[in-house]
Amino acid sequence: MIRRWIERWIQGTRETVLDELAQEEPLEIRLGGEPVTVTMRTPGHDPELAAGFLYSEGVISRPEQLRFARQEAPNVVNIGISPDAPVDLSALRRNVYTASSCGICGKTSIESVHRHFPALEASLCVSAEVLLDLPRRIESAQAAFARTGGLHAAALFTADGELLLAREDVGRHNAVDKVLGRALLNAWLPLERHILLVSGRASFEILQKALAGRIPIVAAVSAPSSLAVDFAVESQQTLIAFLRPGRMNIYTHPERIR
Amino acid sequence: MIRRWIERWIQGTRETVLDELAQEEPLEIRLGGEPVTVTMRTPGHDPELAAGFLYSEGVISRPEQLRFARQEAPNVVNIGISPDAPVDLSALRRNVYTASSCGICGKTSIESVHRHFPALEASLCVSAEVLLDLPRRIESAQAAFARTGGLHAAALFTADGELLLAREDVGRHNAVDKVLGRALLNAWLPLERHILLVSGRASFEILQKALAGRIPIVAAVSAPSSLAVDFAVESQQTLIAFLRPGRMNIYTHPERIR
Repeated sequence: MIRRWIERWIQGTRETVLDELAQEEPLEIRLGGEPVTVTMRTPGHDPELAAGFLYSEGVISRPEQLRFARQEAPNVVNIGISPDAPVDLSALRRNVYTASSCGICGKTSIESVHRHFPALEASLCVSAEVLLDLPRRIESAQAAFARTGGLHAAALFTADGELLLAREDVGRHNAVDKVLGRALLNAWLPLERHILLVSGRASFEILQKALAGRIPIVAAVSAPSSLAVDFAVESQQTLIAFLRPGRMNIYTHPERIR
Repeated sequence: MIRRWIERWIQGTRETVLDELAQEEPLEIRLGGEPVTVTMRTPGHDPELAAGFLYSEGVISRPEQLRFARQEAPNVVNIGISPDAPVDLSALRRNVYTASSCGICGKTSIESVHRHFPALEASLCVSAEVLLDLPRRIESAQAAFARTGGLHAAALFTADGELLLAREDVGRHNAVDKVLGRALLNAWLPLERHILLVSGRASFEILQKALAGRIPIVAAVSAPSSLAVDFAVESQQTLIAFLRPGRMNIYTHPERIR
């Protein structure tokens, strides 16, 4: 947390106060010593972020390719991979969705991801009570978010609602990558009996990253996008949004909820 | 707006209701007919998004380079540029911040942007009353956001608080690019006597895009990041956050507010 003196105006009064800010710094991610990308993130859990990012973006395609994830400087992480394993650096271009002969659309984007990460077949079933209680369970793990309002959170739960991991970041995608990276480094993948909770919105990319980790249930505190819903239908992912104490909306595959 | 049947759980009751979703679809951006990137966005104002994106990311460096911005298919926009003007496609890599000899950090990231977009010298001065009234003025323009909770908004105001443009998108950056793109196509740049309001958080990239448009005052409804504040200090941008009816926090350059 970073502290700064600011001017606060409230109902016509102006005062100088000390404010807390969510930290944002660049992280250089290296693959085998070579810089491959720079991403803005909240420092902390950097090796997890780098590993999760390269995996969920499809640069590393199998968990066993990962040899090490090492912090080499405050803003530099180096990822080591098996020398015989192919990496796909083209996946690092801003987006990898390739247009089909009939042009680009939501359908071609979904198919493009599914060529890399096939749809799920997980038969997981969880109780509605467990899901409705998740926001309460993540609260204590969200200290920084509560103080600054500037951080997104992502958390991994078991099907019984046990909190395994919670990570925060100024970037929504980074918070998910930190969770996936930790799971990857712990050799927990595939996460076929787990639930991912995100504090913000559920977009296409959040669902894509969850699918990379093989997570069958994604719950968001805020709204989903149309393409996130379309993606979840095809991926066989259960998508829950507007999850608040005592209420939720189930957008796709409600058969996993009893 | 997209409608879908969903299951809504409230306090133990389960009902099937028709829900409205923020639309998300891929957009292929072409430069002189060649595809250069795909971005997920909310359809609408696509030529503005493409023009604003290429300009604020530094691919097009001067407004007069832009010849046309044309929708060629529902999810394809082609941007035409002067044949004699150089474009910098390397700016399209995920991030263009280059590490200095002493490594990468917030300072090197800020310097990297400032080599492309120098700091401001705008002497604009606005009244606190105008700023405090902006959230109310954008409300009527935010119909979709109000209904789905799934869209970000960005709006451009004059120094007197007149609303010139408001754009919405599932992506925060896209909403800002749509505003910048419209201003670019209207030949309004540099926007040295204007205010940018964003409905969400103020990150490094939002400040960078505002600087590309030469906007001296950026106001956010939610929290700023530490690097956004550091960036605004160096860029001579006034950064306001937590802007709500009757209150605001001024993080940098309060001398522009009377």
